[in-house]
Amino acid sequence: MLEELKQRVCEANRKLVEEGLVVQTFGNASGVDRDGGHVVIKPSGVAYDELTAGRMVVVSLEDGGVVEGELRPSSDTPTHRVLYRRLEGIGGIVHTHSLYATAWAQARREIPPFGTTHADYFYGTVPCTRVMTDEEIAGDYEANTGKVIAERFADLDPSSLPGVLVANHGPFAWGPSVEEAVRNAVVLEHLARLASATVGIDPYPRLVPLKLLEKHYLRKHGDGAYYGQK
Amino acid sequence: MLEELKQRVCEANRKLVEEGLVVQTFGNASGVDRDGGHVVIKPSGVAYDELTAGRMVVVSLEDGGVVEGELRPSSDTPTHRVLYRRLEGIGGIVHTHSLYATAWAQARREIPPFGTTHADYFYGTVPCTRVMTDEEIAGDYEANTGKVIAERFADLDPSSLPGVLVANHGPFAWGPSVEEAVRNAVVLEHLARLASATVGIDPYPRLVPLKLLEKHYLRKHGDGAYYGQK
Amino acid sequence: MLEELKQRVCEANRKLVEEGLVVQTFGNASGVDRDGGHVVIKPSGVAYDELTAGRMVVVSLEDGGVVEGELRPSSDTPTHRVLYRRLEGIGGIVHTHSLYATAWAQARREIPPFGTTHADYFYGTVPCTRVMTDEEIAGDYEANTGKVIAERFADLDPSSLPGVLVANHGPFAWGPSVEEAVRNAVVLEHLARLASATVGIDPYPRLVPLKLLEKHYLRKHGDGAYYGQK
Amino acid sequence: MLEELKQRVCEANRKLVEEGLVVQTFGNASGVDRDGGHVVIKPSGVAYDELTAGRMVVVSLEDGGVVEGELRPSSDTPTHRVLYRRLEGIGGIVHTHSLYATAWAQARREIPPFGTTHADYFYGTVPCTRVMTDEEIAGDYEANTGKVIAERFADLDPSSLPGVLVANHGPFAWGPSVEEAVRNAVVLEHLARLASATVGIDPYPRLVPLKLLEKHYLRKHGDGAYYGQK
Repeated sequence: MLEELKQRVCEANRKLVEEGLVVQTFGNASGVDRDGGHVVIKPSGVAYDELTAGRMVVVSLEDGGVVEGELRPSSDTPTHRVLYRRLEGIGGIVHTHSLYATAWAQARREIPPFGTTHADYFYGTVPCTRVMTDEEIAGDYEANTGKVIAERFADLDPSSLPGVLVANHGPFAWGPSVEEAVRNAVVLEHLARLASATVGIDPYPRLVPLKLLEKHYLRKHGDGAYYGQK
Repeated sequence: MLEELKQRVCEANRKLVEEGLVVQTFGNASGVDRDGGHVVIKPSGVAYDELTAGRMVVVSLEDGGVVEGELRPSSDTPTHRVLYRRLEGIGGIVHTHSLYATAWAQARREIPPFGTTHADYFYGTVPCTRVMTDEEIAGDYEANTGKVIAERFADLDPSSLPGVLVANHGPFAWGPSVEEAVRNAVVLEHLARLASATVGIDPYPRLVPLKLLEKHYLRKHGDGAYYGQK
Repeated sequence: MLEELKQRVCEANRKLVEEGLVVQTFGNASGVDRDGGHVVIKPSGVAYDELTAGRMVVVSLEDGGVVEGELRPSSDTPTHRVLYRRLEGIGGIVHTHSLYATAWAQARREIPPFGTTHADYFYGTVPCTRVMTDEEIAGDYEANTGKVIAERFADLDPSSLPGVLVANHGPFAWGPSVEEAVRNAVVLEHLARLASATVGIDPYPRLVPLKLLEKHYLRKHGDGAYYGQK
Repeated sequence: MLEELKQRVCEANRKLVEEGLVVQTFGNASGVDRDGGHVVIKPSGVAYDELTAGRMVVVSLEDGGVVEGELRPSSDTPTHRVLYRRLEGIGGIVHTHSLYATAWAQARREIPPFGTTHADYFYGTVPCTRVMTDEEIAGDYEANTGKVIAERFADLDPSSLPGVLVANHGPFAWGPSVEEAVRNAVVLEHLARLASATVGIDPYPRLVPLKLLEKHYLRKHGDGAYYGQK
């Protein structure tokens, strides 16, 4: 079942390595089939060069049970499931420990929009979750990770802010498809690196003017977009 | 028409990728044919590995209308056109979001000449534009970007300062030809990175002495140049 | 003798180069055969591309004498021998001058656990030795290097903290096998780089909450581990 | 004449590119034939991939006149000549604008010995020249650059400190042969990068203890050396 999605999720996981976002076996990508109620995700702790479409694991979006696949799904599967259920319209999710995004997450600092590169992809500050409580960590930890992300997005739009930092952990990114989730994970790492280089020059840089943020985001996204080909 | 220039502009755009100056689809190079009144520029939002000479777009320097080409020109075309009209003697323009130059642009900091590497290419501080007004952003934004650059160069010589930072945005570089514009974009990124490494060692480094700046610039440029072969 | 171990140690030394941990001829990996009482180690000052299994040197764990091999063993051999004798259960050791771990060692700063990436591999702060005394340096320097490491680990568990920084020198890492020692050297360098990027954003970041440190370390290690495949 | 030296100097120049020390056409390597009184050096401003042994230029050590070769010698030739005459025992010289060493030179900061990596190659602080006077710059600039280096080495030993930073300019390195000069230029760049990473963690790190500096330098160099093979 879901052979095409398994292929795409497999390729997305490999692309994380090519893009330099993966450290050791950290990092996983998944895609959702909302009609069938299934999530296709990377198996846990398997070397990236041993991944094949056939080794992808299919789990139930509803209860997390393994529907197909011989390997255990990523230990972060409950996080992905919560996000698919709570963040409307997302079709793919990527989690990495990429260097600069993780550094901002470790510093518990949201990434402010310092320029138009940021504004072209994120329509505002890249959010960071609150620190999880001891109870949340001791309990259903991975599902609770998804819940603190969803909590942070209570008043935010996941389609115009396609990623988040989990405090003391690292980034999650998403998009309408798993390919766009990978693209957004790459962009998020770049924005984090660019923000680090910026605060290395001036520790307290001023934000991009709001009008400029809007201009750049909206010329690429939304009804009046005029960037790229039709 | 302009087959040779289209080939050169195409290669210049590809070289931006090779040199690591391009992030996603950001970045564009153009060349001008002043006799014919045409600008040859990259199409908008097309992947770099799909660029061919035949896909380059020819627009009118005068009014910006597409003269040849089936794709939309880069959304930054109006900026290029203003620069060709306002900065005397430039034959090629490159815009990128390269990491360090963009970081200085985001910090709204001009890049001071800290040493002879800088002095070999830029005869003084790399300028940064003022922040654009809300009206300029809401209006003809891309053309206005060119205008704030031209405004910053009112009393500066674009041939001895072959690049600029646009505040909260990123760098533009230029030169007598599109190849030299690419070369200057590479140099500008290097100078920005070198300046970042310098302020990482000493937050308030002193400038290169004026005589040393002059010596290095003039031994490579101008009438008395003695660097390189005749 | 020990042909398989020599092969593995040789490959481990080469992998240090591939992973970018080696500068010039700095860096060495060794493996121990506890039953036979032998250590297999890289020869001293030999270029990495000239290493072969047959050039590995076998020394006595007990007295350090060369048992087999035509080349001198690494000058750091006495450090390795002390560590094999004093740190229970380790089967391989790696020493490098990798960039960021060495920078932390030069700053005489232990690497605090700022996030879950750290917690997945090190169950607490990466320790740093005290500065060696003039007598220790003038005496049996390399053996004394091992002794200050062992001293620092008097109350620490080398299996859950698989590496150390030697003050003003650089990192040593270890593991149950030489392959895992290499893996931990790679991880240690990454954690050092990540910690540098973190203090570049906030000079005084708060630590990962203790519960989160425990959760991540224990979900990968120990009896209740549920990360990876069985 | 000097075919072998021309070959070696050509390869040394190419190696500067391979090692990532060269920016644009900056950087040059030379070797000296003290018996014949000749210096073999790179031609000025020629692309590195167009260098051949036959294009190397032979100049007189005594008066700088071109003895053989059709191209102009590097504009830095007078600096090399002064160094060969004033620094005893050096056989090769390398000048680059490598990133981190240049950043320290731009900050006018000598590189303190923070650890054993430094001590393995430089027996003390990497010196930095004073800023040149306007008269020195306006006069015989390149020869005067050599003179301020020689002035800084009045009480220093160029064999145990095989490199220098020229204030607001960049590094020169040397050695008994042109190959060792390249090696020392690579090492100097690494030590500069390592020192930058160290001050990024602690702005005021303490120095490596003097005994440790001596121990590491002397175990690799001098009569009692025991590092490497005999």
